[in-house]
Amino acid sequence: MKLEVTILGSSSATPVYNRNPTSQLLNCNEKFYLIDCGEGTQQQLIRFGFKANKIDYIFISHLHGDHYFGLIGLLSSLHLNGRIKPIKIFAPNALQEILALQFKHSETFLRYPIEFTAIEATESVLIYENADVKVETVVLNHRIPCTGFKFSQKPRMRKLIVEKLEEDNIGIEYYPLLKRGADLNLPGGKIILNKDYTTDPTLPKVYAYCSDTLFEGRYFASIQNCDLLYHEATFLHEMLDRANQTHHTTALQAAQVALITNAKKLLIGHFSSRYKALLPLLEEAKTVFQNTELALEGITYEI
Amino acid sequence: MKLEVTILGSSSATPVYNRNPTSQLLNCNEKFYLIDCGEGTQQQLIRFGFKANKIDYIFISHLHGDHYFGLIGLLSSLHLNGRIKPIKIFAPNALQEILALQFKHSETFLRYPIEFTAIEATESVLIYENADVKVETVVLNHRIPCTGFKFSQKPRMRKLIVEKLEEDNIGIEYYPLLKRGADLNLPGGKIILNKDYTTDPTLPKVYAYCSDTLFEGRYFASIQNCDLLYHEATFLHEMLDRANQTHHTTALQAAQVALITNAKKLLIGHFSSRYKALLPLLEEAKTVFQNTELALEGITYEI
Repeated sequence: MKLEVTILGSSSATPVYNRNPTSQLLNCNEKFYLIDCGEGTQQQLIRFGFKANKIDYIFISHLHGDHYFGLIGLLSSLHLNGRIKPIKIFAPNALQEILALQFKHSETFLRYPIEFTAIEATESVLIYENADVKVETVVLNHRIPCTGFKFSQKPRMRKLIVEKLEEDNIGIEYYPLLKRGADLNLPGGKIILNKDYTTDPTLPKVYAYCSDTLFEGRYFASIQNCDLLYHEATFLHEMLDRANQTHHTTALQAAQVALITNAKKLLIGHFSSRYKALLPLLEEAKTVFQNTELALEGITYEI
Repeated sequence: MKLEVTILGSSSATPVYNRNPTSQLLNCNEKFYLIDCGEGTQQQLIRFGFKANKIDYIFISHLHGDHYFGLIGLLSSLHLNGRIKPIKIFAPNALQEILALQFKHSETFLRYPIEFTAIEATESVLIYENADVKVETVVLNHRIPCTGFKFSQKPRMRKLIVEKLEEDNIGIEYYPLLKRGADLNLPGGKIILNKDYTTDPTLPKVYAYCSDTLFEGRYFASIQNCDLLYHEATFLHEMLDRANQTHHTTALQAAQVALITNAKKLLIGHFSSRYKALLPLLEEAKTVFQNTELALEGITYEI
């Protein structure tokens, strides 16, 4: 099952050097989950060839503008382009008021429903699940309430060895049970052992998104053993004081989080506008956690 | 004196084909006036090499998102980048509430003052003037209250013929009076005729910006004899019904406005997302008003 994330924006605070404010598009089995939505996200979607209307879920980590100023424009465009299917938004409660006020003054009456779930940055909780994935919040420590999001794939069913099933004339009516791991007693007494006709499923993957936060232990427990951990790395470690002051993380600290939480791979982003070149941030992180990559706009990372 | 306008966005409603929503930057004697501010305007300023902090005046025509969704991001970035000098905003009153709500939830306390002037779309009035320019509203007819803006350069002072003044030993203390057109009686009885030492100033120029409107006569009187008229031309004339329904203008109608109001030159923009190619819009307008150009992003038009 596909699980991959495309970076739409990797800048912190202000857009510079062709870097846009934060946004990511998670593709889980061809369902699309937008994570944060900085200004220009709809333009980035167009640039990278994604159809905004395929997005059915939007997660907003907090109400600093570089994480949501693009949302009202995206929602307006979906309306103008004829969307009627609902969209689910998970965000701090005040976002409802901000959206409503702007729709009111433009006299916009959306053709599609927004199904809004208010999230609190008080404890890590399950906020959504469907057949593919469950989503839990990660309580971060930023200047205003802020949550990350952890996307965990649901366990998959066993994989059928179809050639063998066909060779032995086992009808497709038995496939659902076999996928679920059952052994079968066929009419007439024949016994079908599951292990002969199936293989283990792909292990479910976990992606965690930690947007803006001070480096501190309280959220480490909730992001253990991620296959891919995205973590902000706004500054080089030489700017630690500034990072602490603004409740951000250095590249070195992001790598420490990956190490401590036993991530398989680390993706760093949310780069300060002071860095035109990003390689020093990557090199710093790699001194602590080798399997690190830069979150680069337009690039899709398999999870 | 320099008067020129750079197009930052020329799309209507939704961004497509690399066209951004509406925004223009007017440079009047190296003072910068931003006219409308669709999403991504701050990115466009960077792309085209303008420093956002040079902007001291912002004019918002109406509260449809494609004309202002980029404002909150631009104002936030100015703050984050250390601006302290005031900025003047002329916009519908509700914009104050929209900005305040977003600053509140991000806990942003601007380091610079916003000097806000609420504009009404009821009659054409003078809303601002300084030594260079006066700005008047143009009452348009859109689905929500909407004004255009007319920028009229102030009459310039007469140009001194400096070589001649120096040749005749006329002191610089007399220059200010000569620039203002006065004849002089020097001590000792010598008479200096202004016409011998000055030439006519450059004629003041007029730029009018008509954002979103139905084609109708009520605003024609207020935009007579423009040197450059920007007028929306959302649709081809074959879409007249749609234009009327959405309170927009066709390319043919925009040209008719230019003709009726005796504009010297017409610039058309605010192109519907249905048009990938813009040449048909230009050709249609030129059948009525030959001196028409397309408003293309990144291009600066002298006025």
